[in-house]
Amino acid sequence: MSDTAGQVITCKAAVCWGAGEPLKVEDIQVAPPEAHEVRIKILYTGRCARICHTDEYTRSGADPEGAFPVILGHEGGGIVESVGEGVDSVKVGDHVIPLYTAECKKCKFCTSGKTNLCSSVRATQGQGLMPDKTSRFSINGKPILHFMGVSTFSQYTVVADVSVVAVNPKAPLEKVCLLGCGITTGWGAVAKQPGVKDSTVAVFGCGCVGLSCLNAAQLVKASRIIAVDTNPAKEEWARKFGATEFVNPKQLPQGTRIQDHLVEITDGGLDFTFDATGNVDVMRAALEACHKGWGVSTIIGVAAAGKEISTRPFQLVTGRVWRGTAFGGVKGRTELPGIVEDYLKGAVKVDEYITHEFKFEDINKGFDAMHAGDCVRAVVDMS
Amino acid sequence: MSDTAGQVITCKAAVCWGAGEPLKVEDIQVAPPEAHEVRIKILYTGRCARICHTDEYTRSGADPEGAFPVILGHEGGGIVESVGEGVDSVKVGDHVIPLYTAECKKCKFCTSGKTNLCSSVRATQGQGLMPDKTSRFSINGKPILHFMGVSTFSQYTVVADVSVVAVNPKAPLEKVCLLGCGITTGWGAVAKQPGVKDSTVAVFGCGCVGLSCLNAAQLVKASRIIAVDTNPAKEEWARKFGATEFVNPKQLPQGTRIQDHLVEITDGGLDFTFDATGNVDVMRAALEACHKGWGVSTIIGVAAAGKEISTRPFQLVTGRVWRGTAFGGVKGRTELPGIVEDYLKGAVKVDEYITHEFKFEDINKGFDAMHAGDCVRAVVDMS
Repeated sequence: MSDTAGQVITCKAAVCWGAGEPLKVEDIQVAPPEAHEVRIKILYTGRCARICHTDEYTRSGADPEGAFPVILGHEGGGIVESVGEGVDSVKVGDHVIPLYTAECKKCKFCTSGKTNLCSSVRATQGQGLMPDKTSRFSINGKPILHFMGVSTFSQYTVVADVSVVAVNPKAPLEKVCLLGCGITTGWGAVAKQPGVKDSTVAVFGCGCVGLSCLNAAQLVKASRIIAVDTNPAKEEWARKFGATEFVNPKQLPQGTRIQDHLVEITDGGLDFTFDATGNVDVMRAALEACHKGWGVSTIIGVAAAGKEISTRPFQLVTGRVWRGTAFGGVKGRTELPGIVEDYLKGAVKVDEYITHEFKFEDINKGFDAMHAGDCVRAVVDMS
Repeated sequence: MSDTAGQVITCKAAVCWGAGEPLKVEDIQVAPPEAHEVRIKILYTGRCARICHTDEYTRSGADPEGAFPVILGHEGGGIVESVGEGVDSVKVGDHVIPLYTAECKKCKFCTSGKTNLCSSVRATQGQGLMPDKTSRFSINGKPILHFMGVSTFSQYTVVADVSVVAVNPKAPLEKVCLLGCGITTGWGAVAKQPGVKDSTVAVFGCGCVGLSCLNAAQLVKASRIIAVDTNPAKEEWARKFGATEFVNPKQLPQGTRIQDHLVEITDGGLDFTFDATGNVDVMRAALEACHKGWGVSTIIGVAAAGKEISTRPFQLVTGRVWRGTAFGGVKGRTELPGIVEDYLKGAVKVDEYITHEFKFEDINKGFDAMHAGDCVRAVVDMS
């Protein structure tokens, strides 16, 4: 055990005190882990940009279920500082990635063999609390909420033992911290979808998630990989990650819908499409760009509250399938270590997404970079 | 060859002269089959009720693509009268079922192994014409259009050889004519869906298609089969066809949505749901009644023109799948003879759907019966 085991740790965290407020770096107290909990020294945290802007969605007040004060951050990497009673899946000193999608290996979801959506800590996680319905974070006795079960915008965090996985310590945490969300989400959505090999693929949106879709499509040897983005600067990015073609919907002849264009250039439509935009109109276009009879469209992006997807039912009756994934369908504890190994072998790209690096005290700059639109992924050094 | 081979046949057909007009039984001329065409003496035709009200949809004028004058009818049974050059799949005297979903076994769709939506005659069929872009029907030289490639409301019809299949002559045509559409559609949607065995199923709508879904769910041994219909009289029907439970959305406590009720009584939702109503609001309920993580909802019903389905994308991101089928995903020439054999063995119900029988001259009564809502399936004797 480390020197601090069993002690309350005072450290710095970026606290969001209310909807729409900037993050404020504060001294906070982090209680020791209770039974089946793990306290992690977070070394690096990612700042999700574009679609998986979950942190920003909550910070801005757009999330109707957002609660405050809270420590955001859901993509990070760190080292286990101490563990509570009964923890046997990770040990002090392990390099770990916190998992906002837990994996208990026991619940009806985990044992179904059909989904990665573990239900074990869902209810309390949604309330910003640990499984015992309390918080480990406080400032002078005032509790601060957790976020998505992980709260990586803190130098120390406490997570349930089902919400963390150890990875190969040879992998640099300042890179693989990004596997905690965006990259894995896009990678899994494609790599875990049967049938992509030798098939045609279109990916809508070339942010981090879209780029990792392209990377996976190339890895599994899709026959044709069309990237779609309204930002012409993304063409170079898309090709670097595996796109064989790039289509900018804004550069089509006036009145031509992107789905009609794609159906035309692919002789009937794509075998697989992936939405990585979070825009419900794009989700519709992605479905309708699918080939009649067998095209499968996967929604990856998270839409804004209240937004709905629509289409004519004829699209489905004539054989298209509309589905979605969360965290790419990846079971974090079972599969993430293997993805880290694939990264170490050079198969899965990670370093290539990082456009910005920030010191912890400049964490708000991460959000500014996102807003400016020139950021794919920012990594924040928590030291 | 029969006596009439190579001759124009004058016979009776129910002609629809314009949108919203009743069918009129007229003397028409039916030209001999051209190469790769088959002329069939239709003995019985079904009158689709409720959701697969395709004929009525066109007759009423609701179908924006409907064209007139036309001979409707897409569910029938008959005997091959003569065949054109190059026809080797059926011969004179064969008992046959015309197929509005053709199967050429050569096109990209047929050879994909993924869909039953053959494209071989699609374009001309949609225009009410034979593959050579002309009609075989006329009245005193004025062409009358075909419908869905089959036009079973005529004592003689001509179809492409890819649009007809021979079945066991021991099967009574006045029964198995109904396998040309509704029963096969519901049966295939369930029976061809992997994973239904030992799973929970809900079927929305207990008309012919919904009942055949229930029948198939029982045959493949679903663990729990919930029928949903707003007509309490359908409970007896549903149970007879295999439902283990019946839920009437109108009898739920006020304000309780059917999807929420079903999620509650199934501990999280159904493994599989099937919409056999054609109502887009019901389609949404069927999707949302699915279990998070793996529930699959299949749209079978045909919605009215311009209607759209909607849901929150979160429903898909959390693991539900939205799909659809046409003609139950059944490849008519390859699979329908087997379904007829299953009927002869007593596995697939057919006789049980027939609530009304009409003489040809009373064909409009079929529509009246549908409108009255007490009809599951009507069979019209074409003699």
